[in-house]
Amino acid sequence: MRAELLTVGDEILIGDIVNGNAAWMGRELTRAGVRVDRSAVVGDTMEAITAAVSAAVAGSDVVIITGGLGPTADDLTRDALAALAGVRLVRDEALAGLIRDRVERSGLRLRPMSLRMAEVPEGATMLPNPAGTAPGLRMELSGKTVYALPGVPAEMKAIMKASVLPELDGGVPPAVLTLRTAGVWETVLATRLAPLEALEEVSLAFLPSPSEVAVRVTASAPEVLDKAVLMAKELLGTVMYGTGEQTLASVVHELMAARGREVAVAESLTGGLLGAELTDVAGSSETFAGGVTAYETRLKHELLGVSAELLEARGAVDPEVAVQMAEGVRERLGAFYGLAVTGVAGPGAQDGKPVGTVHIGVSSPKGSRFFTPVLPLPPDLTQARANIRRMTVVQALDLLRHEILGVAMVRDWEEDQEGREGLT
Amino acid sequence: MRAELLTVGDEILIGDIVNGNAAWMGRELTRAGVRVDRSAVVGDTMEAITAAVSAAVAGSDVVIITGGLGPTADDLTRDALAALAGVRLVRDEALAGLIRDRVERSGLRLRPMSLRMAEVPEGATMLPNPAGTAPGLRMELSGKTVYALPGVPAEMKAIMKASVLPELDGGVPPAVLTLRTAGVWETVLATRLAPLEALEEVSLAFLPSPSEVAVRVTASAPEVLDKAVLMAKELLGTVMYGTGEQTLASVVHELMAARGREVAVAESLTGGLLGAELTDVAGSSETFAGGVTAYETRLKHELLGVSAELLEARGAVDPEVAVQMAEGVRERLGAFYGLAVTGVAGPGAQDGKPVGTVHIGVSSPKGSRFFTPVLPLPPDLTQARANIRRMTVVQALDLLRHEILGVAMVRDWEEDQEGREGLT
Repeated sequence: MRAELLTVGDEILIGDIVNGNAAWMGRELTRAGVRVDRSAVVGDTMEAITAAVSAAVAGSDVVIITGGLGPTADDLTRDALAALAGVRLVRDEALAGLIRDRVERSGLRLRPMSLRMAEVPEGATMLPNPAGTAPGLRMELSGKTVYALPGVPAEMKAIMKASVLPELDGGVPPAVLTLRTAGVWETVLATRLAPLEALEEVSLAFLPSPSEVAVRVTASAPEVLDKAVLMAKELLGTVMYGTGEQTLASVVHELMAARGREVAVAESLTGGLLGAELTDVAGSSETFAGGVTAYETRLKHELLGVSAELLEARGAVDPEVAVQMAEGVRERLGAFYGLAVTGVAGPGAQDGKPVGTVHIGVSSPKGSRFFTPVLPLPPDLTQARANIRRMTVVQALDLLRHEILGVAMVRDWEEDQEGREGLT
Repeated sequence: MRAELLTVGDEILIGDIVNGNAAWMGRELTRAGVRVDRSAVVGDTMEAITAAVSAAVAGSDVVIITGGLGPTADDLTRDALAALAGVRLVRDEALAGLIRDRVERSGLRLRPMSLRMAEVPEGATMLPNPAGTAPGLRMELSGKTVYALPGVPAEMKAIMKASVLPELDGGVPPAVLTLRTAGVWETVLATRLAPLEALEEVSLAFLPSPSEVAVRVTASAPEVLDKAVLMAKELLGTVMYGTGEQTLASVVHELMAARGREVAVAESLTGGLLGAELTDVAGSSETFAGGVTAYETRLKHELLGVSAELLEARGAVDPEVAVQMAEGVRERLGAFYGLAVTGVAGPGAQDGKPVGTVHIGVSSPKGSRFFTPVLPLPPDLTQARANIRRMTVVQALDLLRHEILGVAMVRDWEEDQEGREGLT
């Protein structure tokens, strides 16, 4: 079964928001064995929507539209579908009642425009929206099935799960698995995996993101996939931290939970991003004690006990400062592990250290050490801030992961690893 | 001038990553007065890429392709363009030298596959890549201009800015501005702005996201836009916190910087996200002192001085706890403002409080108060965690903004506002 996704909304075309809906649907449909061939985005005009729906219907078995079902005047998907089907819009009174109730339950007054969401193309099937107001719609257009869902992500997802995915029979899902790695360059990784890529029935795709590379393995059959993944594990060792939906944070959480351990974090340039990533994992209260963000240099001394002389002599961006931050937060919060980051996110240099300089410290009852990652930087450093912060979080989580596992970090399998990590 | 965007990559279709490149390009092209009519995504096959490029070329003046220029075997955009143009791929030795240098400068050994990036379709113009290795390409196909850029965001952006945008003459950019609001429902906002929407030469688009709604105002001319924005400001008052690229965090930063003030944050359910958002702003060290994430209840007492009796009696999710957290972090970090959040992000309830319960405290020399936002929740609370954390950050920043401005928060213009905020 082949599907085309159609996202409706000027806000996507002109980039006011990113098309996260298409990504989520692509993931879920692929899992269900439905092949997503194309994904298109068009603006909020009758012409653009009707043209795109007609084209999509011609080229695939199922078309899933998101967006344009809201209450405001620029929501035109309902009207476009009615026009294509040659029917009129009719108000569903039961739905109108639900809308009235929901608004009033929130202590607000019903606005007439809210009732636009109760108008549906004659003959269309309404798909209940457990997460919001506007229902999804299912219609037949020239023999193909067309779904229309609200653009609000939570509502789209709820209707997809409750109504759309159960109706779509994609047959056998492909044998595919995404391997997750951190800290190694794409080409280094690809070269290491060459023996795997050489296999006839296996294909690899490399998906780089700041300090991480995901490798999607597609195989001709489940048993082939199992063999390929086993082979990848042997080739990559601890560089491969997980598979599928796992994240560095979820893996670190699982490793600590299995050992009954907790981490406390001390942050500077990341401003809380490291703790936010660790607590993005449901159940993180089991392994995350808390954190201290000592953004101002003086607070590294006042809140974390970093030596004032050290800060005076070397500034805040220093390996030893990272180590003392890790030790300080570990002791003060009473956690097994202390993890700390200090560095320069930019746009300007700090304490004479250039943008992109980052030191990570980790501390446990076994001792403390630091890691100084080499971060790739764009020439325009005003654009680097977000990436540097993100890469710092990834490298810190990966250092903690290796600390828990009690192994050294790998940056390449053929290079001199010395001098990249220091013991104190 | 009309442009079509084409993103190449299975990883986008199957949702391994979101299409942030298309969003960024849409924004920049719109600013440059280039109208983005369509955006499409296709997979990593010669057939899909060549078909999509041909279709795009037929339908628009300029086609901008991203992705498929990397070093690995699944990078096929170069090959597809050569095939469409009926030329062969030739190696550029100067580029091959650059690639060799860059790899070796990073202390790594050159992998043969890296040199794939030095192969370009005969006759194509290379656009220098100041942020990475693979250059951008410009070619003419059936009289239209086609650009191909790497999929790595930083590299795509650098080449767009250095080579592509300067070449594209979009004529007069449209008179458009995005207004940013927080804390008010889309329908409430739209009703409030009805007089504006009634104007002939103005059109509005509403872009909701957790606890925020952006309103894009498009006008027939710059002077009409100015009038419309002025009118919107009068109608919305402090509910409108900014315009364009401004964020709640950047606005709060500007407000504090203008007054020479700093904020310190105390977090619980957000795990550091509030501090991360405040420090996402370049120059935030001027207004952000630091933060304490007291994820474990005991730490709210140990690190922030919240009354142990209070925590014992009412648990960690309580308005008075939020206030004491704000006061505690303000005193301990020596900041003018203390901002604190406590609540239940889920998946499970905590201290008998249901998922979605959130209390925000703010403290300054003028006194302390709390705010208890009413957050809309999906039925499937396992999906709510990220949204609850995000909405909590937005509501907290908005409370701080109102505190700085010394005005009360508005949830609607026609409802009883009492009981939503408390003074202690």
